Amino acid sequence: MILITGASSGLGAALARHYDQDGQAVVITGRNRERLRRVADGLSAGTQAKAAELTDPVQVGDLLDGLPRPPKTVIHCAGSGYFGPLESQTPDAIRALLDNNVTSTILLIQALVQRYKEQQLKLVVVMSTAAQVAKAGESTYCAAKWAVRGFIESMRLELKGSPMKLIAVYPGGMATEFWETSGKPQDTSGFMSADEAATMLKQALQSSEHGYISDIGISRG
Amino acid sequence: MILITGASSGLGAALARHYDQDGQAVVITGRNRERLRRVADGLSAGTQAKAAELTDPVQVGDLLDGLPRPPKTVIHCAGSGYFGPLESQTPDAIRALLDNNVTSTILLIQALVQRYKEQQLKLVVVMSTAAQVAKAGESTYCAAKWAVRGFIESMRLELKGSPMKLIAVYPGGMATEFWETSGKPQDTSGFMSADEAATMLKQALQSSEHGYISDIGISRG
Amino acid sequence: MILITGASSGLGAALARHYDQDGQAVVITGRNRERLRRVADGLSAGTQAKAAELTDPVQVGDLLDGLPRPPKTVIHCAGSGYFGPLESQTPDAIRALLDNNVTSTILLIQALVQRYKEQQLKLVVVMSTAAQVAKAGESTYCAAKWAVRGFIESMRLELKGSPMKLIAVYPGGMATEFWETSGKPQDTSGFMSADEAATMLKQALQSSEHGYISDIGISRG
Amino acid sequence: MILITGASSGLGAALARHYDQDGQAVVITGRNRERLRRVADGLSAGTQAKAAELTDPVQVGDLLDGLPRPPKTVIHCAGSGYFGPLESQTPDAIRALLDNNVTSTILLIQALVQRYKEQQLKLVVVMSTAAQVAKAGESTYCAAKWAVRGFIESMRLELKGSPMKLIAVYPGGMATEFWETSGKPQDTSGFMSADEAATMLKQALQSSEHGYISDIGISRG
Repeated sequence: MILITGASSGLGAALARHYDQDGQAVVITGRNRERLRRVADGLSAGTQAKAAELTDPVQVGDLLDGLPRPPKTVIHCAGSGYFGPLESQTPDAIRALLDNNVTSTILLIQALVQRYKEQQLKLVVVMSTAAQVAKAGESTYCAAKWAVRGFIESMRLELKGSPMKLIAVYPGGMATEFWETSGKPQDTSGFMSADEAATMLKQALQSSEHGYISDIGISRG
Repeated sequence: MILITGASSGLGAALARHYDQDGQAVVITGRNRERLRRVADGLSAGTQAKAAELTDPVQVGDLLDGLPRPPKTVIHCAGSGYFGPLESQTPDAIRALLDNNVTSTILLIQALVQRYKEQQLKLVVVMSTAAQVAKAGESTYCAAKWAVRGFIESMRLELKGSPMKLIAVYPGGMATEFWETSGKPQDTSGFMSADEAATMLKQALQSSEHGYISDIGISRG
Repeated sequence: MILITGASSGLGAALARHYDQDGQAVVITGRNRERLRRVADGLSAGTQAKAAELTDPVQVGDLLDGLPRPPKTVIHCAGSGYFGPLESQTPDAIRALLDNNVTSTILLIQALVQRYKEQQLKLVVVMSTAAQVAKAGESTYCAAKWAVRGFIESMRLELKGSPMKLIAVYPGGMATEFWETSGKPQDTSGFMSADEAATMLKQALQSSEHGYISDIGISRG
Repeated sequence: MILITGASSGLGAALARHYDQDGQAVVITGRNRERLRRVADGLSAGTQAKAAELTDPVQVGDLLDGLPRPPKTVIHCAGSGYFGPLESQTPDAIRALLDNNVTSTILLIQALVQRYKEQQLKLVVVMSTAAQVAKAGESTYCAAKWAVRGFIESMRLELKGSPMKLIAVYPGGMATEFWETSGKPQDTSGFMSADEAATMLKQALQSSEHGYISDIGISRG
């Protein structure tokens, strides 16, 4: 079974559709119950949709404890963006950005490690190229994404020898609803669609007896 | 005038003593009014000590607006550490770590940029080698420090052309009170003292007509 | 048509077999004519094998100019490793390592850019995790691989807007003949076989209308 | 005693003057005997100037074996730059760039490690910001500088526990003769002079009983 976070839109929703079409059991989650429902309506009858606020450790625990069985794969797409020069951001927007990207990821992975550390779980964490480079006008977003990357790289060391594997994904600009609320209007006509990115990512998530694709960058062009 | 955060102990307190001995005007800040007072008691009569909680944007604003004049240099040492395997950290400790290291830094720098963007301000941000590498048993601390580094590198791009300069400092293990509450007992007998690090850092913070020391790593050994 | 360098053994040879089995036209190259011939003997009759010393710009030019048509994809696997403490390496071994990994890559990519800059060429450069981290006992090998990475990242910026795309691949420890001559005897029984890595890499080399998988890490485990 | 390479011009020559004025014993080296002589003529009578081609291991060995006593500090400034789009560089220029920056550094450090591994030697390696970021139009220069950085970081791990310390220096654009032959004409009027950089670097090279400044970035601005 595959658990997908941030599945109410964008890459998460597209991945849910692709895995569902493959006949795989999928559980989708997201913050917005209504939007999550709309995505679920387009999937197989057996698909489960469970709304959860990942910045709340109780809801994270409930989400995992309510799964029918341990997931084989978790694809963590949840996150939010907010751009613009630092001076123009409100303290609340800064806090929300850190919470929605960093705290949520740490709490989710903590809950997964606590439950499934000794199981063969593939944990796919979707970040952004903003986790790899610095960008003017995206200072708090880069802060959040660098945090996630530092966390993932540290957890790889901490989980050395565990059958749980961390896969890091760095997509470049996708044309998703993300941009509408990002404070940075973009002409996204030349961007990848979420569906294109999902198709490529699903193909790239390969593993074999002694190895696996552990890091994936996806670029426009 | 030099404003030093995190000045109630460790490197911040040591730097305050060194600059004070040099006859420079120093304003020190920290969360703990009592400990801050004790540091101030060892400094010149003119030294100002102003307690402030840097995770609160109102207190950050009040701190800066209460300064007698714009600072020439700000040395941001505030921060806290918490170590141990991810599974053993409480959600509250995770949140506090992100708040005390990331949110505080973003809010402080935002307030400085809003006020002094067009002034020749040297803004020294003291991070840790945990901002540069991943470490098992320090996953949330690395997350926090990578966040600060991503933020600083992005703000450097955003402030290109501004007379405000960002200086990044990465000290290795120092023997400070930091470790007592860090969850990671250490034999710190071979570590640098805060005083040693302060002496070296103060010497290394050089600038000239056309350039400045912008990045400083300090290692044990 | 796909051009594969370093195809006389290891990952290059395995990739040649996989693409050949898919019915794709493959040209393989390598330094050792004899070993290259043995790989070619296991492939379709139409496969071309052309020995070339990539550290020689004339041979690189001849190789490309002798291709039946411009390649759609070039997979550059050529390279060599030599390990051990710095003190024990001979100056000749150091020079050979830099030549076989760095000079060859620069000359090959220069020749490709000179000929095909305006064509939709996918240029896949296989490096190593040694291009991303530092390692004791592998100092000159890391030097060579960091060089290639710095070169590739710079060429990405230089080729911005060109239809030629650079794909960076970072495989972890594979069980190939590489180790026999590497100066670092390894128990490679838990390593990926070249065939496993080739299977995964081929699947991961995805592209779509507006994007492509640009960076691929492959790990043991 | 301080050994300075690349001392016939630029930062190396400026450092030699500064340390000489401080009354320290200095040995300067460089490829060009004539230019080296002119620098030496401006220094104290006791200063030794020894021409050496650092890409030749025999000359490196002779240089070190001819020193009056083991150096306390070695500052390695030697290197050369060549810029421009990849297509326009000749294979010979590419090779020379790698040789003058990478091979020379590896051979020098190998010779130092072989002789002084158990001594308290500060080995300062001057690179460039091109060792830290990728740049269009500087692809082979970045390759060379990333190589040196990967080498230095690996040697730090290899020398763990040794009293020999590696200090990495990353200067931004200086106004030196470097640019005249670099293939990239620059208006260097806003750049740091070599003398400015030398003044700052000398001050920043601090050490104490338990620690030392290990990494120094110098920026324009």
